[in-house]
Amino acid sequence: MQIRVQTFTVNKRVPLTISRGTTAQSTNVWLILEHDGIEGWGEASPFEAGRTPQTTAAIAQALQYLAPKLIDLTPYDRQPIDVIMADLKLPSAARTALDLALHDWLGKRLDLPLWQLWGLDRRRIVPTSVTIGINTPDAAQQRLRSWIEFTTVRAVKIKLGSPEGLDADQAMCAAVLKDVPDGAKVSVDANGGWDLAGAIAMSHWLGDRGVTYLEQPLAPGNEQDLLPLYRESPLPIFIDESCFNSFNIPALADRVHGINIKLMKSGGLSEALRMVHTAQAHGLQLMFGCYSDSILANTAAAHLAPFAHHIDLDSHLNLLDDPFTGATMQDGCLVPTDLPGLGVGLTPVASLRGR
Amino acid sequence: MQIRVQTFTVNKRVPLTISRGTTAQSTNVWLILEHDGIEGWGEASPFEAGRTPQTTAAIAQALQYLAPKLIDLTPYDRQPIDVIMADLKLPSAARTALDLALHDWLGKRLDLPLWQLWGLDRRRIVPTSVTIGINTPDAAQQRLRSWIEFTTVRAVKIKLGSPEGLDADQAMCAAVLKDVPDGAKVSVDANGGWDLAGAIAMSHWLGDRGVTYLEQPLAPGNEQDLLPLYRESPLPIFIDESCFNSFNIPALADRVHGINIKLMKSGGLSEALRMVHTAQAHGLQLMFGCYSDSILANTAAAHLAPFAHHIDLDSHLNLLDDPFTGATMQDGCLVPTDLPGLGVGLTPVASLRGR
Repeated sequence: MQIRVQTFTVNKRVPLTISRGTTAQSTNVWLILEHDGIEGWGEASPFEAGRTPQTTAAIAQALQYLAPKLIDLTPYDRQPIDVIMADLKLPSAARTALDLALHDWLGKRLDLPLWQLWGLDRRRIVPTSVTIGINTPDAAQQRLRSWIEFTTVRAVKIKLGSPEGLDADQAMCAAVLKDVPDGAKVSVDANGGWDLAGAIAMSHWLGDRGVTYLEQPLAPGNEQDLLPLYRESPLPIFIDESCFNSFNIPALADRVHGINIKLMKSGGLSEALRMVHTAQAHGLQLMFGCYSDSILANTAAAHLAPFAHHIDLDSHLNLLDDPFTGATMQDGCLVPTDLPGLGVGLTPVASLRGR
Repeated sequence: MQIRVQTFTVNKRVPLTISRGTTAQSTNVWLILEHDGIEGWGEASPFEAGRTPQTTAAIAQALQYLAPKLIDLTPYDRQPIDVIMADLKLPSAARTALDLALHDWLGKRLDLPLWQLWGLDRRRIVPTSVTIGINTPDAAQQRLRSWIEFTTVRAVKIKLGSPEGLDADQAMCAAVLKDVPDGAKVSVDANGGWDLAGAIAMSHWLGDRGVTYLEQPLAPGNEQDLLPLYRESPLPIFIDESCFNSFNIPALADRVHGINIKLMKSGGLSEALRMVHTAQAHGLQLMFGCYSDSILANTAAAHLAPFAHHIDLDSHLNLLDDPFTGATMQDGCLVPTDLPGLGVGLTPVASLRGR
């Protein structure tokens, strides 16, 4: 098989601020696999959740280094490919780009969408949340209003963990809660911006206001503090940055209620499925989330969405210039189509270099 | 989809005695699924490892009860089918029969063998052990000799846990060890026939004699005693009857080195794969085993065999009248073929009723 990669830059409609900083655009990696006359596509988006930031350059370089080692293999040789990727210690997002392309290729080769190949039921997909970044109360309220104008909002994720402290968090959250549509589910993601005492206090404050769950309240590395929080919190606790893959789950299963699976952390759909199985064996809840992914990677995650209790796959909805098409929004839910593989294409006006 | 079931009886070349008793024949269930002009086949074999024995009659009855509930579904509707099976609380072996047929159907529909659909590498399959049942030292030695005449023996599993005690176990084991072919791996399965003190003593005795691993030394229900055994044993400890499915793994992961996955316990290939993923996340080793399965179910397990450190899929080799064909023995390894689905057929002389 042959693979080639090219980068592309996507710009956000509204810059997004979380506890770690603000992003207005992202330069992602597009991987095109070709074998036997069929193309499979994958994507990697850079992110900073781990110890080593996974930059666009590092991801693209890793894939360039990998490409010649795959030439004598076919997309069916998944076990040998995984051995090669493990030996090279590729960044997880680089593995994701290839994994998505391998799955897309297989589904196209078999003329089946992945959700159907896996026997999943699209009617089980719950609404995706739309994300409200850290901002002033007025601006956050305005952001929710513009989301509501833009799409059907049945779930809202509020980013807290403001550098300005818990008072700022509460003021912004209270402002957003006023305008949440009736029946919509609200969750909070602190992106590790709180300490234990703050997280416990906020869990009660948020629980009193009907918030559904609380994501990554403590910074990665503070997993020992999850135990007392787990005991005290009236809200289910989900972890994101504290859990990259299935191997991280057993040690966390006694101190969280659920896991936020992201393809860029896991290394792709194969490992995401291993995380689903491991988390289920531990009785944990599941959600799927994203970084600055285009609709390509979010569509890939949507194929596994029937497993999830919560979905947060809205990054592509906040892009001005997504070059791809894929899963469609249906009454607030991101639903993969009947097209084979991932079901991803190029937007009519996409001007990606080399296409 | 339509399913129909029929029972068939297979007779052992040599009756097999384990700590719980002797079997000379088994009446198994053959499930035929039909949809869209394609047949998928599955098998259930009765077994007694759990609290409630899963009898042939109970399995067949459960499947008869299930059949009409599947009529409006297709083999792609795996998630809804699993919900129906869970709601009905079907015996695991009944679920296995349907799961195998669903996988066989899918592979035939896609014109791919399952190992290839899953991207697995058949060259990773390790030799299957051949089983020496509890017997006199002379008879056990003779059994090994007849195995060696019958097939290439690269791994031997010795059944211990004799009702006559540890001296009888040691005498029989010592006799068999004398005739094990050079380079062949030897393992011991006590089928829960020992207490903690006996298991610790035997782990040292067997370790001194080069045995590779020790399976289910203690009876199910005695899992608390696995902790001291785990600390004391020089041999890796595998569990079988103590672990049916992925949900059983987390509580055992701190006290065993590996899991024996059997399709009849798990409920099929789907749950076996969930067990593989959960066990891998816990850093556990894996093996695949069988009950009185024909080559149909053993071939299904062989498709997942590239994941396993040890393989014990020899029950069909000890059948006089296996009605099926499937995976073939290649230099001591049970290897699935290039045929689509499970790659299982009827033997030329099979006289199953209704065919």
